[in-house]
Amino acid sequence: MQFHGLSAFPVTPLNTGGEVDVAALEKIVLRLRQADVDSVGLLGSTGLYAFLRREEKRRAIEATVNCLQGSVPVMVSAGALRTDEAIALAQDAEEAGADALLLAPVSYTPLTEEEVFQHFVAVSESTSLPLCIYNNPGTTHFTFTPALLARLASLPGVKALKYPSSERTDSAFISSLRAHFPRDFALGFSVDWHAPEAMLAGGDTWYSVLGGLLPAQAMSLALAARQGDGDRLALLNAELQPMWTLFKTLSSLRVMYCAVEIMGICTPVLPRPLLPLRAEECRKVEAVLRELKSV
Amino acid sequence: MQFHGLSAFPVTPLNTGGEVDVAALEKIVLRLRQADVDSVGLLGSTGLYAFLRREEKRRAIEATVNCLQGSVPVMVSAGALRTDEAIALAQDAEEAGADALLLAPVSYTPLTEEEVFQHFVAVSESTSLPLCIYNNPGTTHFTFTPALLARLASLPGVKALKYPSSERTDSAFISSLRAHFPRDFALGFSVDWHAPEAMLAGGDTWYSVLGGLLPAQAMSLALAARQGDGDRLALLNAELQPMWTLFKTLSSLRVMYCAVEIMGICTPVLPRPLLPLRAEECRKVEAVLRELKSV
Repeated sequence: MQFHGLSAFPVTPLNTGGEVDVAALEKIVLRLRQADVDSVGLLGSTGLYAFLRREEKRRAIEATVNCLQGSVPVMVSAGALRTDEAIALAQDAEEAGADALLLAPVSYTPLTEEEVFQHFVAVSESTSLPLCIYNNPGTTHFTFTPALLARLASLPGVKALKYPSSERTDSAFISSLRAHFPRDFALGFSVDWHAPEAMLAGGDTWYSVLGGLLPAQAMSLALAARQGDGDRLALLNAELQPMWTLFKTLSSLRVMYCAVEIMGICTPVLPRPLLPLRAEECRKVEAVLRELKSV
Repeated sequence: MQFHGLSAFPVTPLNTGGEVDVAALEKIVLRLRQADVDSVGLLGSTGLYAFLRREEKRRAIEATVNCLQGSVPVMVSAGALRTDEAIALAQDAEEAGADALLLAPVSYTPLTEEEVFQHFVAVSESTSLPLCIYNNPGTTHFTFTPALLARLASLPGVKALKYPSSERTDSAFISSLRAHFPRDFALGFSVDWHAPEAMLAGGDTWYSVLGGLLPAQAMSLALAARQGDGDRLALLNAELQPMWTLFKTLSSLRVMYCAVEIMGICTPVLPRPLLPLRAEECRKVEAVLRELKSV
């Protein structure tokens, strides 16, 4: 059941030298444990996996596993442009005690379906950890066809899908997606402003950026969705609309790195070319955090 | 004038260990010198820069510079996801004797205009080499606005633009683009099946994949374009239509790595997840090379 419920994706705080700030990461991860999230999605896109060197990723995994002591499953992104690098990252994650892997078809040269399929075969065969397909065309620029997703889901090690939810979150849509997969395959959704509704409509998982920093709020939504309480979910979602607007206009990653500082957890440094939000944008983030009583 | 005329983009041959096959690279580079191309675009997208480690790129640059002995300017891609890595690559290229840099806004997290601008500022300030903006949304997934291109062109180190040509290659379009740039700024075009026409219509440069392996054929087109001989250019372009069709359907990168083997130059290994063309696709490439009397 590690691919069910709320999977919280924390930021990875870096210091000015570009190294993982382990103490700050532990603070963030402890918040997740305290809120009883169902899993931690370490080194996701929000966790800057694409920008971090192998040894920094390893330090982040070791610190997180050590901090959680098996209380919450840890899923780690093994995405890389090269197959051999993805395999090395998968092996690092397994050795460091991760429970599952998230694998995105990171691309530069546009990839063919067969190339992505063989990439997943190679990585899944290199590890005993279960694997979640990371479908995020906004960053990887690869669009999965339903046929490819079904083919990947038939691989023994591939157990889950992280799918970017959109306006279409009704149960007919969820069922039509689910029809491509084996019975025990976990179908989960990213994009925070739609994913809880997708969960209400039958999705197994909410892969959440908000949950990585405000896990209590995200757990409330996840709980309402799991209990089938659409009215309560709508109410909670309405309260979070100002945050969703910030995510849409300023990007959830940049908003979260700003929020972690406003909340006094740490002062993370984004790896260039990424730039922090401007002062007036940070004030908007602070205002929303105040409304949510998170600062 | 290093950003004018035919800039030939060779493949970077790798051996089974993933290392640059220096002897094979030298063979390819010597063909370019013999054909008297105007510059070599080393480690472009076709040259796999996105997939190669820093030390391999350095070996490729050193071998090429050593082989050409200053007879042809060498432009090298310094593109990287992180600004500090792009700076390191730029410094490596300068130390190894390159003459110019090509810089793409490689992205994973979608970048803002300001982030890309500051990235170019940082890299251009780190080197004394002139810099060419690499505009290739198909791989970088960043779309330059005309305003950002104009702002970048005003930086002292930024001297040229590699722009992906499209159906619109008339002189009114070229002039409208040129209006954004300083007088001595070099405006050149990629996408082989349109770029020679863009050169005929007033472009300064053809950044050519074909030129990296069949430089004599590419030089004929570049010469016709420079001489304003539209009839001859149309004739030569018609002869190359079967090759352009292969480029469009199988991707120019994969076609070139197949062609280099068919031509007996070497047996390069693509870095996974990239896969070589299938046997029946290679036979099509061979048939076209025979038509062009290149095998």
